[in-house]
Amino acid sequence: MRALVVICDGMSDRPVPELANKTPLEIAHTPNMDWLAKHGICGQMDAIEPGVPPGSDTAHLALLGYNPYEVYTGRGPFEAAGAGIELEAGDVAFRANFATVDNSGVVVDRRAGRIQDTAPLEKALQQIKLKGVRMIFRRTVGHRGVLVLKGSGLSHEVSDSDPHAEGKRPLEIVPALREQETALPGYPVIAGGMRKYVLRRNRAAKTAKLLNEFSKKAHEILKKHELNMERERKGLPPANYILLRGAGVVPHLVPLEKRLGLKGACVAAAALVKGVCRLAGLTVVDVAGATGNIHTDLNAKAKASLKLLEDHDFVLLHIKGLDEAGHDGNARAKVEFIERIDQILAQFLDSVDYIVVTADHSTPVSVRNHSADPVPVVIYGPGVRRDGVERFGEREVAGGGLGRILGRHLLPILADLMNKSHKFGA
Amino acid sequence: MRALVVICDGMSDRPVPELANKTPLEIAHTPNMDWLAKHGICGQMDAIEPGVPPGSDTAHLALLGYNPYEVYTGRGPFEAAGAGIELEAGDVAFRANFATVDNSGVVVDRRAGRIQDTAPLEKALQQIKLKGVRMIFRRTVGHRGVLVLKGSGLSHEVSDSDPHAEGKRPLEIVPALREQETALPGYPVIAGGMRKYVLRRNRAAKTAKLLNEFSKKAHEILKKHELNMERERKGLPPANYILLRGAGVVPHLVPLEKRLGLKGACVAAAALVKGVCRLAGLTVVDVAGATGNIHTDLNAKAKASLKLLEDHDFVLLHIKGLDEAGHDGNARAKVEFIERIDQILAQFLDSVDYIVVTADHSTPVSVRNHSADPVPVVIYGPGVRRDGVERFGEREVAGGGLGRILGRHLLPILADLMNKSHKFGA
Repeated sequence: MRALVVICDGMSDRPVPELANKTPLEIAHTPNMDWLAKHGICGQMDAIEPGVPPGSDTAHLALLGYNPYEVYTGRGPFEAAGAGIELEAGDVAFRANFATVDNSGVVVDRRAGRIQDTAPLEKALQQIKLKGVRMIFRRTVGHRGVLVLKGSGLSHEVSDSDPHAEGKRPLEIVPALREQETALPGYPVIAGGMRKYVLRRNRAAKTAKLLNEFSKKAHEILKKHELNMERERKGLPPANYILLRGAGVVPHLVPLEKRLGLKGACVAAAALVKGVCRLAGLTVVDVAGATGNIHTDLNAKAKASLKLLEDHDFVLLHIKGLDEAGHDGNARAKVEFIERIDQILAQFLDSVDYIVVTADHSTPVSVRNHSADPVPVVIYGPGVRRDGVERFGEREVAGGGLGRILGRHLLPILADLMNKSHKFGA
Repeated sequence: MRALVVICDGMSDRPVPELANKTPLEIAHTPNMDWLAKHGICGQMDAIEPGVPPGSDTAHLALLGYNPYEVYTGRGPFEAAGAGIELEAGDVAFRANFATVDNSGVVVDRRAGRIQDTAPLEKALQQIKLKGVRMIFRRTVGHRGVLVLKGSGLSHEVSDSDPHAEGKRPLEIVPALREQETALPGYPVIAGGMRKYVLRRNRAAKTAKLLNEFSKKAHEILKKHELNMERERKGLPPANYILLRGAGVVPHLVPLEKRLGLKGACVAAAALVKGVCRLAGLTVVDVAGATGNIHTDLNAKAKASLKLLEDHDFVLLHIKGLDEAGHDGNARAKVEFIERIDQILAQFLDSVDYIVVTADHSTPVSVRNHSADPVPVVIYGPGVRRDGVERFGEREVAGGGLGRILGRHLLPILADLMNKSHKFGA
């Protein structure tokens, strides 16, 4: 039994006035998705829960069956795993930006002129030593990078140095303990009692100190680096500062295969999605031509998926472009790209047993950001209770046999259809 | 963006034989609610969870996004907040009744002849001193009042003095530690380990002792009070005893505005609902003519809501009368009052962006009490995925696009539609 799970990032939408109050998915010509809907079982899905707009990282954690409220503390670990860094539970990781500060120390470009070749800078930064911890700095794409600290007594409960706006100085990193939303009196607003509070505060203070030290040393190295001198001569903004954000601790995740009995693989371009899949124990491959935008080579991704299905129970095929079109507010681009995705589905109909098509979240063109609207989902394959849904669309599926499920239900339902589930009880 | 959330207390019902097996909502003429259903998105909602009949306090906690299982220990704190007492997390509060005991100490009237003017008695009771704690006694409406204890080492885990029946003596208040419903052997039946158990028992014993002392002193003062002498001369039952019940501790609630980004206000007559809204940080106003029954001035409440919408993101308009009609088993009164509520909705169609109509729970006329049947809900406004529902009724909405949601999902969904939500993740 083989399954393909297609996650169309941000595909789901709201009615769009310029599309006659249809959504892009409703108006797109999608004969393959419609065929799946007609012959499969459909429904609505809230990746995390109703009313919560998911990130792509938290949504994928949920889709892989983990509770993001338990295991997600920030994007850092998933960026780092996506960049291929070997991580252990307890490592603390950050998303990093190469940025430009001027002589007075003010951030004038948060992306250092969208610098591309940061390899020499990465190499120079790797010389930095921090007392008592191991540090890994890795550049990724463009101005992006990740920072990982490995050692005992570290904490993710620290603030960002990234001021999230230009014209401001980088911020000093300080402890930022996360309060509980509610607590009964006598119980501390910080979970776990006074002793735990002191422990957490001390760890956060130690980590913040190390990070401030890193930031200072990095700035010293970068501002004198030959590559930056050269950029300044050319009138380009030097990449002379590393802005940190998205602190998170690497969680212990029981591998998906152990939990659900499904050996999985992931085809994705987005580092964050690859990172989540890697930490969940999926095989993650790099596909030439997969760009994470609407210019991606969908056929190459489909081909890679078919190849992986030879020795995996399922492949999670993540397609990013629609999310970008949603962020751009471009309904027409969404319609066209949905139609292109639809075209690659036909080749799977004869070669896999189950096909799931869904999204990780909505990115309505009217919102230009993720929203909490539920996403449509179809499961096609042997044994499904085919329902009366005739077309694949946000509203058509609402009457489907799956009803309204949560993201964490999807793979267990699929595993069960594939006879891989284990009875709980006797 | 402005939203009106109309909570019709107890509106939802079961099929009624005398209404041709329709519910009061299904049979009522409700052109405005039907219009909203036709142009909005509909569904069913369980305020707390399926199968749990909510109280108005727990339902409203859930509707405001809090988990009543975490923050609700009894009605006392919400009654006290509804009465306008300034509360802090950790205060212990009780619902109080002025009652009549005879010379042998037996409760002969739990409501002291539904006494109205208790102001002189309240004043006399405020003289009571209890060692080590601050006491606030406040009369509310009729024979009702609230008692609040402020101080360290107090507990809500005590029994009622109210025997909940006439012909019995007031009960001595004793510690009543709440057991866990289930516990594995080796784990204590009272949560939190032996040390915590001892701490909780000692606090409960101390609180019970203070309350018994209060009851005794209150009885001494009241039985000699001139107002009661006068009542006895007139043949009226003297209000010579304070019966306590509904012990609860004031929880720490992160204000709704901080959690959901929505600045809210509440228009309600019911003290319990006002109390929940006040503790959640909503603006709570008193509206002249709002009575909490079917004789309430709905137009005054609508006008007050419109006024509050000028500087709030949303107004929770709570209308109580239908619950009373349900408790009375009066289907006809329900139908008529639903039609009156429908009439006030028209004026909001042009003046707010979003309108939500729902109930906090069902109060079926056949049950004469709250039931766990889910309630209908409609959300009307920009961006909603309009579904095929044509009329607003318990069964018509079951096929709607919202599916079946929980009470705690409602405001997050609304906040998301209003572009106030925050993405969880990256």
